[in-house]
Amino acid sequence: MKNTASINGFIKIIVSCILALSSSLSFGNPTTSQWAVFEQSFAAKFEGNPFREGKLKATFSNGDKVLTVDGFYDGGGIFKIRFMPDASGEWSFITESNIPDLDKKTGSFTCVPSAGSVHGMVHVRDTFEFGYSDGTPYYPVGTTCYQWVFQGNPKQTLETLSKNAFNKIRMCVFPKNYDVYINNEPPLYPFEGSKEKGWDFDRFNPAYFKMLEENIGKLMDLGIEADLILFHPYDWGKWGFDKMPQDKRLQYVEYIVARLASYRNVWWSLANEFEYLGFSNGEWEQLFTLIESKDPYHHLRSIHNGEHWYDVLKPYITHLSVQTTDFFDIQDWREKYKKPVIIDECVYEGDIPSDWGNLTAEEMTSRFWQVYCRGGYCTHGETYIDSRNILWWSKGGILRGQSPSRIAFLRKIMEERPISGVVPFHNLWNKEMYLFKPGEYYLYYYGNTQQKLARFKMPGNIKFKFEVIDTWNMTITPVEGTFSGSTEIKMPGRPWMAVRIKSFMTSE
Amino acid sequence: MKNTASINGFIKIIVSCILALSSSLSFGNPTTSQWAVFEQSFAAKFEGNPFREGKLKATFSNGDKVLTVDGFYDGGGIFKIRFMPDASGEWSFITESNIPDLDKKTGSFTCVPSAGSVHGMVHVRDTFEFGYSDGTPYYPVGTTCYQWVFQGNPKQTLETLSKNAFNKIRMCVFPKNYDVYINNEPPLYPFEGSKEKGWDFDRFNPAYFKMLEENIGKLMDLGIEADLILFHPYDWGKWGFDKMPQDKRLQYVEYIVARLASYRNVWWSLANEFEYLGFSNGEWEQLFTLIESKDPYHHLRSIHNGEHWYDVLKPYITHLSVQTTDFFDIQDWREKYKKPVIIDECVYEGDIPSDWGNLTAEEMTSRFWQVYCRGGYCTHGETYIDSRNILWWSKGGILRGQSPSRIAFLRKIMEERPISGVVPFHNLWNKEMYLFKPGEYYLYYYGNTQQKLARFKMPGNIKFKFEVIDTWNMTITPVEGTFSGSTEIKMPGRPWMAVRIKSFMTSE
Repeated sequence: MKNTASINGFIKIIVSCILALSSSLSFGNPTTSQWAVFEQSFAAKFEGNPFREGKLKATFSNGDKVLTVDGFYDGGGIFKIRFMPDASGEWSFITESNIPDLDKKTGSFTCVPSAGSVHGMVHVRDTFEFGYSDGTPYYPVGTTCYQWVFQGNPKQTLETLSKNAFNKIRMCVFPKNYDVYINNEPPLYPFEGSKEKGWDFDRFNPAYFKMLEENIGKLMDLGIEADLILFHPYDWGKWGFDKMPQDKRLQYVEYIVARLASYRNVWWSLANEFEYLGFSNGEWEQLFTLIESKDPYHHLRSIHNGEHWYDVLKPYITHLSVQTTDFFDIQDWREKYKKPVIIDECVYEGDIPSDWGNLTAEEMTSRFWQVYCRGGYCTHGETYIDSRNILWWSKGGILRGQSPSRIAFLRKIMEERPISGVVPFHNLWNKEMYLFKPGEYYLYYYGNTQQKLARFKMPGNIKFKFEVIDTWNMTITPVEGTFSGSTEIKMPGRPWMAVRIKSFMTSE
Repeated sequence: MKNTASINGFIKIIVSCILALSSSLSFGNPTTSQWAVFEQSFAAKFEGNPFREGKLKATFSNGDKVLTVDGFYDGGGIFKIRFMPDASGEWSFITESNIPDLDKKTGSFTCVPSAGSVHGMVHVRDTFEFGYSDGTPYYPVGTTCYQWVFQGNPKQTLETLSKNAFNKIRMCVFPKNYDVYINNEPPLYPFEGSKEKGWDFDRFNPAYFKMLEENIGKLMDLGIEADLILFHPYDWGKWGFDKMPQDKRLQYVEYIVARLASYRNVWWSLANEFEYLGFSNGEWEQLFTLIESKDPYHHLRSIHNGEHWYDVLKPYITHLSVQTTDFFDIQDWREKYKKPVIIDECVYEGDIPSDWGNLTAEEMTSRFWQVYCRGGYCTHGETYIDSRNILWWSKGGILRGQSPSRIAFLRKIMEERPISGVVPFHNLWNKEMYLFKPGEYYLYYYGNTQQKLARFKMPGNIKFKFEVIDTWNMTITPVEGTFSGSTEIKMPGRPWMAVRIKSFMTSE
């Protein structure tokens, strides 16, 4: 299930070294692979603030394909440009800069096809679905570790992720200060300055972003999308990163896009619980549209709600990132917004007092199934009381709950569905939960019910095979025989069951 | 918990006998008790159709109180008037009729105060609550037995009800034809005629309504409200009682109001899943306003939805009778409609295949708690597969499920709350579920969570006692000590828990 292609990271380093050596010279033809990060460094002398005043961009081309990316200052007199080639073949570039040392530099590299396990970036597919650049479906199975990179244990977290089935992780750029659960200092800060003396929002700390990138790269190697939260309100006066004025926010966003857009697994999540940050709608729109203009690859863009919703009809929002515990309206949201729906927060498995962190594993699992069978995707989190306040939800570390294995089981079922044409059942009752592709595939979820029989009205002219799925005990039991038309099958009479139905092609 | 005042039924019979003897004579002063049924019979000869053409009404007065009721033809040459005195003292009446034998007849009776267990009719109290005429609170704890009177076993059903805590029952006037679960013939029919030859909607069968009344009277003796469903769509061509034209519907409603309005425990539920009957909104409104004008006691009036809602803002609707499995909006509905909310159908405990009848007992119980702690009231039903298709939901009989005892436990908790001023918590998240009366009473429900600690921000200047309630195991465990301000209490870390908090008055 995991993409273990750490070769990409390796290639990136090699390419980077070669190009750093070659500096601004056009130097042979290095190689990178499709959807990996190509990086070019340039040494340059610059008076003034290189973050703020040093302008660098590069235009990459490969035949008809032409993309322009911003470069960024990485400290130590080094400017960089990064680029993600989305097609194999020969790529060349030329820079543009207000710094003579960086202007009109050219270079080229050869992009080789990706390894089989690398499928590109995740985009919206078929209005309500996601898929990689090469067309491979991507079914989001998210988890939440807001601060695993800076306030937790990245190594242990990556180790845990490698053993689980999550393929998306919600994580913050800025450190988090939230109750007793997370309030430790990160080893680095994103800006120059200090808590005591104040931050210079005009001077980034490249080491901070390098640490972030390194870990995002490791997620990439594991096949995990980084749903990167650019702003969050959980600072509460501790650092003040939530209090930047709008011009500094724009500058920060521009910097992070320049650094990170070439990581194929990055998603731009503008905020967690956006409304508590107090930005105006116009300010959010400015941030969104800046990203839209600066990110040539069009990574996914979303914004996560607290009590209120952002106007998610806005065209710069690619999908819904919803906090809710009410799943009844998922089908309606699909129809209203014509975008994929991810329930990115619906309370976590755990036992803490907070009302957002004490679901049983059964209920966390059931919420994944409910959301999935209503046509959305769900995100996990874990918040078990810990004497050292290391909760997976904030600091990563280890997973102790019982839902992750069940969620992995569901992911397998997701991946076995038809690639396209699967839709959720929807009527005004909105009571039944099932996905279907008429005549071909049906996946019913029964939640907290205990029927002893299940009845189906199948098309009469097609033979179907039935399977009874125990979503908790993770078993799939085929029902003997094939069925057409009105069908009744025996059920075990206990909660958390599902039924999968597939058309059965005989050789007749 | 039960009102076993069968004395009312007895008094009714005595009064009826005495008055039948006295016929139209003003005869001494018989006695009835407050909120019991006073009945006066009159023999009269009448040419034509006495149901349709015989008009009779009577005006009852007691000091300033004056109420007019319609009489009805009860077969065998007997017309009757029934009256429910809502105040003790001397009542007299005078009739008005187009039949000379029935016109200007007078009579009187003495109304004595009710027994202590009889509190009158149920009305809306404090906008969102219910209470009896004498001010005693009434907290609806409903069940559903659509056809226990005519297609089930009334004796056994009443016996079962007497051993449980339900104080409201949803039941139909007309027989029901629904799948394999209920399709048997009733022993009687409401109209003259037959299935084969057709029904004469102008001629009622008094024996049918007597059987109905007798059983509604027995519910009254048990302290159970009869939420009487006047129309339902589940006939499917078997009898055709759903196909009366509007003028016949109005005639039927007028007849049933004349017969039954004097039963203090009757509620008028215009329909079950009203929209499938296909009446126009204007027709429903005509039926509602007819009842409003003919029922001098103003019994509760509602209408139950299928997929669509009736315009429940209409002033003739006293409370919401909702079918839903989504409880998130209960607080919103209270605020929007300013009426009590009863979730009259939210799937039943059972194990049948239909998606409306297979909840676990845990889930049925939890739904009662969820609805209650959001400021509504809930209704039970039971649908366990039975070899003879005797399901409590349709035919009554015995209860086999595990939720009724838990619902009885909840009723006890309801009855221990402050009489007024208790409201549900409501914010935009709509996630937390609790009722509270600030500074005095709090009832939190935690559903399918497993927190090991619960935290509360209580007022600092009041001492509170805490109790941990296991809604499934039906235990109430006091927490030692009293608490003020920020309070943390230990929880058992398993689902279906509640916490009750009461202010604690010391003698200081």
